[in-house]
Amino acid sequence: MDTLEILRNLAIIIICAKVFGLIAHKLKTPQVAGEIVAGLLIGPSLFNLVPDNDFLSGMAEIGVILLMFSAGLETDIEKLKKSGLKAIAIAVAGVSIPLVLGTVMYMCFYGFSAPGTAGYIEAVFIGTILTATSVSITVQVLKELGKISTEIGTTIMSAAIIDDVIGIVLLTAVIGLKDPDANPGLVCLKTAAFFALAFVAGIVIFKIMQMIDRRWPHTRRIPIISLVLAFVMAYIADKYFGVADITGAYVAGIILSSLDDSAYIDRKMDINSYMIFGPVFFASIGLQTNLRTVDMSILAFSVAFVLVGLFGKIAGCGLVSKLLGYKGSDCLKIGVGMMTRGEVALIVTQRGLKADIIDSRYFTAVILLIIISSIFTPIILKALYASE
Amino acid sequence: MDTLEILRNLAIIIICAKVFGLIAHKLKTPQVAGEIVAGLLIGPSLFNLVPDNDFLSGMAEIGVILLMFSAGLETDIEKLKKSGLKAIAIAVAGVSIPLVLGTVMYMCFYGFSAPGTAGYIEAVFIGTILTATSVSITVQVLKELGKISTEIGTTIMSAAIIDDVIGIVLLTAVIGLKDPDANPGLVCLKTAAFFALAFVAGIVIFKIMQMIDRRWPHTRRIPIISLVLAFVMAYIADKYFGVADITGAYVAGIILSSLDDSAYIDRKMDINSYMIFGPVFFASIGLQTNLRTVDMSILAFSVAFVLVGLFGKIAGCGLVSKLLGYKGSDCLKIGVGMMTRGEVALIVTQRGLKADIIDSRYFTAVILLIIISSIFTPIILKALYASE
Repeated sequence: MDTLEILRNLAIIIICAKVFGLIAHKLKTPQVAGEIVAGLLIGPSLFNLVPDNDFLSGMAEIGVILLMFSAGLETDIEKLKKSGLKAIAIAVAGVSIPLVLGTVMYMCFYGFSAPGTAGYIEAVFIGTILTATSVSITVQVLKELGKISTEIGTTIMSAAIIDDVIGIVLLTAVIGLKDPDANPGLVCLKTAAFFALAFVAGIVIFKIMQMIDRRWPHTRRIPIISLVLAFVMAYIADKYFGVADITGAYVAGIILSSLDDSAYIDRKMDINSYMIFGPVFFASIGLQTNLRTVDMSILAFSVAFVLVGLFGKIAGCGLVSKLLGYKGSDCLKIGVGMMTRGEVALIVTQRGLKADIIDSRYFTAVILLIIISSIFTPIILKALYASE
Repeated sequence: MDTLEILRNLAIIIICAKVFGLIAHKLKTPQVAGEIVAGLLIGPSLFNLVPDNDFLSGMAEIGVILLMFSAGLETDIEKLKKSGLKAIAIAVAGVSIPLVLGTVMYMCFYGFSAPGTAGYIEAVFIGTILTATSVSITVQVLKELGKISTEIGTTIMSAAIIDDVIGIVLLTAVIGLKDPDANPGLVCLKTAAFFALAFVAGIVIFKIMQMIDRRWPHTRRIPIISLVLAFVMAYIADKYFGVADITGAYVAGIILSSLDDSAYIDRKMDINSYMIFGPVFFASIGLQTNLRTVDMSILAFSVAFVLVGLFGKIAGCGLVSKLLGYKGSDCLKIGVGMMTRGEVALIVTQRGLKADIIDSRYFTAVILLIIISSIFTPIILKALYASE
């Protein structure tokens, strides 16, 4: 491709993503939603200014790896260890109810398929997309209300971390099964082998990185080596274990999350992310979505998807909270706090698209879920706290 | 291309570039030299681990734009205005003597060509590569010796900035002439039109950016808009004026160099640069160079190129300094201080390669010049100051 076109496309993507990101922010929705809308506008849906191409896909790929690496880096392992059984139970319910409901809903729309068939895997994948919570919106609201350090705040945050981990493992398993000749036993074995190896290698890598970090704190080599580690783990995961590359990058982030300099590393990743790779990734979602092909059937599916997505989390997390002894209004707060979706849902969708499991038309449903959950969570949460 | 391969290639490039960059730094040579050596090692010259491909070229292109934008941002316009006739005279001599000597030397090797022919343009281009000084090494040495604020230090720094500007204009003109049907008058007219337009637009852009910057200082939008501006100016320069895209990025940097937040912008660009795009650019130079094809004739040419490069600056800057009334040893200091070459020489070479003016084998000569000048400048400068 002509390198001049690269500059042109990047300029359009970055400025539009920033402008619409800011507008989204003003409207109290996540910037990510604005960046996707920017992609929709400049893509085939409307103005067709920027074609999706191999170079942009490559940049978007780096963007995804950076985002997932960052998500891993921000994991608070200590909090995870302390979060206890309550958070784990809530997370498990918050993953499994939307997973099952999403799968069933897909089958209601497109017919029941026998386990192991492509239709079945597609159905399960739609359920998988619904599993990962993105609590950044909830965290903002709780901070605003001064409730972030309450028991409910801590529970939501811990459960959200755990449900990310479960979601990633689930994604790994489903993608592993995509191959019609795949032996489910072998897939599970390879996945288990990856996590076992990552655990052992993780301890060694952490020790080495800690040594380097303490010897040369706050030097450029720290984020550079970390970035390379994320790329390498993503590559090894996918190439040798059939595990999604984003899982590798996420695990790399978790391994380094306890370093003294983990926030320093995260900041450098973040700058790379928000300047170039992030906008390209989110806009590329918009570029891959052609709203002109959206018909009534996709629209109906999207609405059902959003309802199941919201209700699944509220029901799953809420009911288990009730069983754990929380009072009614607190259960609702936990459920609503867990219902926001964000980057991870998009990344999972995009992985399914790349693995030929699902079609790009489901982006519409996921984008809708992100926007609607981000708008309603703050409103409902504030109302719930105000009514006390 | 497979996105997994992208991760693999980037991981190899970034880690090798960092390791060899650090080794180069320990050996008191510029990190850039180490990064190029890393590219040579992993490229076709030795281990052939990473193939040069379209994706990496695109990333390298972004890297070049970032580097030149950064160079522009770091321009101190106030110092430039004050630098006076002395620095201008030294810069002009420091550009023209190596330019003429380089052109003549090329013709001695490969035969004389009539003005306007491809051979002639190639010869002038070889001279053009020799024009741009990179004073970062000299600045380091002068700082170490505590001589950076002396008259000689200031003169060297001002002259180096001016010679960058002249070098860029020269590059623009030569690339404009590459087209056999190009009308030299039209090329000059378009080049002049670009700079005139950039000057007028620059004032408007600066005023607008200053307003944005003062309203929202130190926010993400500042570096993001700046980056987009660099891409846009690079695109417009090349697309509509036939001016090298790096010139556009450089001019964008100069326009923004007087913003309150110019250092803030530069820092963000620098992080993008050193983490991913910079290593890819410098390593890609190594990837494009195949040392296995280096024969005696290229080697002989390279040695002559290095000698002319070093001698041309010492003679040009030194003699004019003498005429301006500096004493003998100070003239030598100025000449030696101006003889280091770096990124810009490489970028110019790479642009000539892209425009089909020169062949990739000249990279060998340029790399040699950078390494040798970076090693000898500090040694000679220190000796000159010690002998006082």
